Amino acid sequence: MGDLAFALAMLATVVFAVTGVLAAAPQRVDLFGSTVLGVITAVGGGTLRDVTVDVPVFWIDDPRYLWVALGAALLAFPLHRLLERRYRVLLYLDALGIALFGVQAADKVLALGHGPLVAVMMGLLTGIGGGLIRDLLAGRPTLILSRELYATPLLAGTGLYVVLHGLGVPSLETNALLAIALIVALRCAALRWGWHMPEALTLGRGG
Amino acid sequence: MGDLAFALAMLATVVFAVTGVLAAAPQRVDLFGSTVLGVITAVGGGTLRDVTVDVPVFWIDDPRYLWVALGAALLAFPLHRLLERRYRVLLYLDALGIALFGVQAADKVLALGHGPLVAVMMGLLTGIGGGLIRDLLAGRPTLILSRELYATPLLAGTGLYVVLHGLGVPSLETNALLAIALIVALRCAALRWGWHMPEALTLGRGG
Amino acid sequence: MGDLAFALAMLATVVFAVTGVLAAAPQRVDLFGSTVLGVITAVGGGTLRDVTVDVPVFWIDDPRYLWVALGAALLAFPLHRLLERRYRVLLYLDALGIALFGVQAADKVLALGHGPLVAVMMGLLTGIGGGLIRDLLAGRPTLILSRELYATPLLAGTGLYVVLHGLGVPSLETNALLAIALIVALRCAALRWGWHMPEALTLGRGG
Repeated sequence: MGDLAFALAMLATVVFAVTGVLAAAPQRVDLFGSTVLGVITAVGGGTLRDVTVDVPVFWIDDPRYLWVALGAALLAFPLHRLLERRYRVLLYLDALGIALFGVQAADKVLALGHGPLVAVMMGLLTGIGGGLIRDLLAGRPTLILSRELYATPLLAGTGLYVVLHGLGVPSLETNALLAIALIVALRCAALRWGWHMPEALTLGRGG
Repeated sequence: MGDLAFALAMLATVVFAVTGVLAAAPQRVDLFGSTVLGVITAVGGGTLRDVTVDVPVFWIDDPRYLWVALGAALLAFPLHRLLERRYRVLLYLDALGIALFGVQAADKVLALGHGPLVAVMMGLLTGIGGGLIRDLLAGRPTLILSRELYATPLLAGTGLYVVLHGLGVPSLETNALLAIALIVALRCAALRWGWHMPEALTLGRGG
Repeated sequence: MGDLAFALAMLATVVFAVTGVLAAAPQRVDLFGSTVLGVITAVGGGTLRDVTVDVPVFWIDDPRYLWVALGAALLAFPLHRLLERRYRVLLYLDALGIALFGVQAADKVLALGHGPLVAVMMGLLTGIGGGLIRDLLAGRPTLILSRELYATPLLAGTGLYVVLHGLGVPSLETNALLAIALIVALRCAALRWGWHMPEALTLGRGG
């Protein structure tokens, strides 16, 4: 992995750990609980991916991910009031985080020789899996029940990456940049203008 | 796997994906959420089994399972009102689904050389694991808290299969048919006559 | 594994299975549900550990763990009123259980050549993972939201074990005994005197 890619992955790890701690903050959680939630948000999705495709779990292979997640979660505890005031900035950084993790996961799974649908699924699982485990452990409703556009941009971007790969577009870097840009653009637009899934694509309308 | 066995496994996948979507329908879930719940219901149990016994996950090995689960979940979304009116039919098909998945799992685990208790456990995990993950993600009470006879027929049938195997009964096909028939019969009887675990086998009677 | 270590691991398995059943008792759970919760409490944490570090799952390798967990969970069902009256004794035995499971896990992970942070994480996951899955399935708030000192003693003890190992202290038995003693002492003190995390280490104070 290049230096830039590694730095971006570390940034994504920090952002995920911090949002994990902040997601816990409204509840009475102690330092232990908030740290566990932060670390799980940061490394949970990639762990599910690696266990499912049966490769060594990335933070066991390279414990720097675990140290960085732990450090960020511990630091976020005393700083949580300060960070909460910057919450919107964190949401935009989180958009970059899911984009980086999702596209990197799709690339890793394609490189293992798996097909396009498996790659998209693993991109999705890597991007949102940590947050899902965090919400379950914290007793919060999961993302699955939210109509916010969070996972759909991720699906669009990893889908684009897989299609470009399938079409034989050679430059992995350009493909990855396009896919990441698509995810970040869609997710930031959803944040900026409050985009939701339309009613027609929502069940349980009580009608 | 024979053609009939494959066709039945695909039928079970479709039924599980559809019941997963319908289980989500009472809540406000969008197309993304309902599809995730459908796919997880269909492939979640077998995924837990394969990861636990450390063999390649079946839908990574053969992505047709994933495509069929995805297609069925997507189709169930616009059709959910129609399907809900046929819900009892789906419950009976679901009985066939858990029977097929459970017995197939027990057979797979015995073939790997594991013992009878491990085989029964993996039959159980395969049959109900996807539904458990779905209920957790959808914020619904899990099957564990229900007194409906759902898992007990599955345990009886996989238990019968493992005992017949242990007794050296040679014909795998006959053994599997007997076990599947037992599960379907018990589960359909429970559905038809509203069988529950008796009070004597229930904790928390408030007495 | 020595005879004493094996006997202690079996004792821990029994205690975890029993506390799993008792944790379910306030709710209306039938024999199936309570047995599943008991078995998952007993073997869930070690299963998560083995799957994550990619070694054969311990109860598939040696099904005696599964038989003992199943037997203890089944026995705890009719005896639950009697056991509830002895609940404080069980809590102290549970302290021994998390100590044994946690230190044994850290040792196993270090022996596989992984680093100190991974060893402490796996000790934690092994000690509390089964209880976390049980609480999710039973619809109870998880340990993560509790301010009770439950996981912190475990972290302190596995941390001590890993530090002694890192310092090159040769006697594994003495190191393990010291770490287990530290966990049991801290946890029992927390139980005896109602120790909690201080307010300063708790988020969501509503202030």
